[in-house]
Amino acid sequence: MTGLNSLGKETLSRKTTIVTLTTDFGSADGYTGIVKGVILGIAPKTVIVDITHEVKPWDLRAAGWILGNSYKYFPRGSIHVVVVDPGVGTDCRPLVVVCSQAIFIAPDNGVLSWVLKDCPHCQAYELTSSKFWLNPVSNTFHARDIYAPIAAHLAKGVSPQRLATPIDSQLLIRLPCPSVRIFEDWLIGEVVHVDHFGNLVTNIPGDLAMQARECVVGDCHIGAITKTYASVTAGTPTAIIGSHGFIEIVVCQGMADSVLGLGVGEPIKVKLSATYY
Amino acid sequence: MTGLNSLGKETLSRKTTIVTLTTDFGSADGYTGIVKGVILGIAPKTVIVDITHEVKPWDLRAAGWILGNSYKYFPRGSIHVVVVDPGVGTDCRPLVVVCSQAIFIAPDNGVLSWVLKDCPHCQAYELTSSKFWLNPVSNTFHARDIYAPIAAHLAKGVSPQRLATPIDSQLLIRLPCPSVRIFEDWLIGEVVHVDHFGNLVTNIPGDLAMQARECVVGDCHIGAITKTYASVTAGTPTAIIGSHGFIEIVVCQGMADSVLGLGVGEPIKVKLSATYY
Amino acid sequence: MTGLNSLGKETLSRKTTIVTLTTDFGSADGYTGIVKGVILGIAPKTVIVDITHEVKPWDLRAAGWILGNSYKYFPRGSIHVVVVDPGVGTDCRPLVVVCSQAIFIAPDNGVLSWVLKDCPHCQAYELTSSKFWLNPVSNTFHARDIYAPIAAHLAKGVSPQRLATPIDSQLLIRLPCPSVRIFEDWLIGEVVHVDHFGNLVTNIPGDLAMQARECVVGDCHIGAITKTYASVTAGTPTAIIGSHGFIEIVVCQGMADSVLGLGVGEPIKVKLSATYY
Repeated sequence: MTGLNSLGKETLSRKTTIVTLTTDFGSADGYTGIVKGVILGIAPKTVIVDITHEVKPWDLRAAGWILGNSYKYFPRGSIHVVVVDPGVGTDCRPLVVVCSQAIFIAPDNGVLSWVLKDCPHCQAYELTSSKFWLNPVSNTFHARDIYAPIAAHLAKGVSPQRLATPIDSQLLIRLPCPSVRIFEDWLIGEVVHVDHFGNLVTNIPGDLAMQARECVVGDCHIGAITKTYASVTAGTPTAIIGSHGFIEIVVCQGMADSVLGLGVGEPIKVKLSATYY
Repeated sequence: MTGLNSLGKETLSRKTTIVTLTTDFGSADGYTGIVKGVILGIAPKTVIVDITHEVKPWDLRAAGWILGNSYKYFPRGSIHVVVVDPGVGTDCRPLVVVCSQAIFIAPDNGVLSWVLKDCPHCQAYELTSSKFWLNPVSNTFHARDIYAPIAAHLAKGVSPQRLATPIDSQLLIRLPCPSVRIFEDWLIGEVVHVDHFGNLVTNIPGDLAMQARECVVGDCHIGAITKTYASVTAGTPTAIIGSHGFIEIVVCQGMADSVLGLGVGEPIKVKLSATYY
Repeated sequence: MTGLNSLGKETLSRKTTIVTLTTDFGSADGYTGIVKGVILGIAPKTVIVDITHEVKPWDLRAAGWILGNSYKYFPRGSIHVVVVDPGVGTDCRPLVVVCSQAIFIAPDNGVLSWVLKDCPHCQAYELTSSKFWLNPVSNTFHARDIYAPIAAHLAKGVSPQRLATPIDSQLLIRLPCPSVRIFEDWLIGEVVHVDHFGNLVTNIPGDLAMQARECVVGDCHIGAITKTYASVTAGTPTAIIGSHGFIEIVVCQGMADSVLGLGVGEPIKVKLSATYY
């Protein structure tokens, strides 16, 4: 628990703490502005950073995956609020999860699954002390009424113990994260995210596949891993090691998802042997 | 006027002041970035928060309603700039409105109607002192040339009296805000906003209707008020007390507007008697 | 070089420096949040402002044009990162360009063309000192791995000379910026941008055309320059001097691009004589 204690101290002594937001709220209704107003009212020196508010409504998997890829790039001690909450107002527990790198605030609905894979030694808490929440608490907007004030109190240096009750992190809800299998001389995974550029991000780690001479995604034979988007002519699909460290199927200056007609869940296999398929 | 004076002093002594932005500018053209550049050039310590820039072009009603629901969650003394301005460059007056909670900057076109309902004792000013504006002032981008520098000067503690001329707040343009009527044993209102989740937000206050056993929106009989989105099975419409404090017609994990084929302006009636309809 | 030196000193002594971001990353995937996390990890006092992340993927021209219109409104010494990078991972050089007003960070692919027109006496540098970058550097996300840490080090006051190698700014890649011609008594230009409101922004400077009695865009005769959007009845196209200082073809409370069926590249001509066409 030394890591957690030192993180607690660091947070207290920082002049500014970062709070990030990852939600499915969109940007049209003012909901994210309201959350920021609540945070800044309690902790005026907080620096608030939007990770995204454009998660597809109720897509826990996408939100969790994006957060899992993003939090590592923020300074140690940052506080990450992730609210995709189809069960808001039910008995889904509001959580704080503290690990050596960061603090996470989210409902206990699986959205932290990707973070929890990285942080086996985290300490989880259930938010129970309603005196730190807005009053009254609505049944529909816990980001405003519970998560924002809790983030702000943590940013000011209030310890998680004062805000919440320790619980067993092994009992948190986890979504199945698709795993990579080996079958004969193939690595078999799947497309886990399609980004703004239409790139098909898979779950096959780049370091396992760097020498691969053949990738097959859906029914499309893509060929060898190439170095950059621009290694092939415009419009041609290719496989690269993407910025997340995983194999991505991309189309140079094109949208791979629409060119290939593929999306999340599509199987991908990568030949381990250097022999051309 | 004690409230206004104390607000003035508070603003002066704060290290940082919040300026929020509510516009129909979208996020594609750099317009909102330019507004922020102007503010930060004059008042570098300002914390700028986007409420939304995705108001439908020229939709004064939506912008005013969103601002009216958002400003209360920001710290006292925050400055709220709202620019939806179909008449930019005409003789529509640029305003500053000071109330005990906040300062508002907007054109005199009705976009402050929802705020003015809350703040009957506000003090209004017409912006007249062009030496505080950018020079020259365009006919098309007053947010950059007038509203942003005025927000920045106010954030630095310049008093409204130095920037503007007092006017009678009773003469400001107000849009008709749809009201709730009682007819026999029904409360009758309408849908005033459709949010990113497709929720139909009405103008019927939740505290009047908490015991209601029957809601009818358009031709759809919805039934009783339930506690949460998740009180019914996925795909079923229900009525809840939403986060704004008003009745919302929602569909659990679905978009009520498309499921029901309804939008802004649709009548809703709620039976006051506890007897089932 | 006096201007550059004094800018360097100013940057060093400022408490906070602004870093702006102009990209085609969209807002759905967390990419912009990650860039901000990297910057704030190195330079926690930086104020980060989004100019836009909604540039059409790989549209260097649009990104460069938007940046060229925006940077002037930010305080002197601001650092502008623009990343639209179809050639990411290839041997396209990463640049820092210092001028008296601002510092620009971008790939050498022409996206700085509009800025370079304004700043003939700038000093260009190629980013060569990888010890200031994230390690390892991916082939696909230089904004995170190279541009963000460089922006942060500059914001902290590290001199460009320590981060990069001086190069000849005359050799930077420049895109052709469409120019205005005179033919008989007409000024001939083109539509260079269509904004969120459907306004057709041209490259014909307003001060040359203020007296014009006749504009023709595509096959549409628009008539004289008017003062404001609201100078004509709703739905009617007109020509105004837009906020960028150029002639814009607009439709009062309508979208000119769809009303007229016109877009970027469309020719426009403006009669210089005061005689009606």
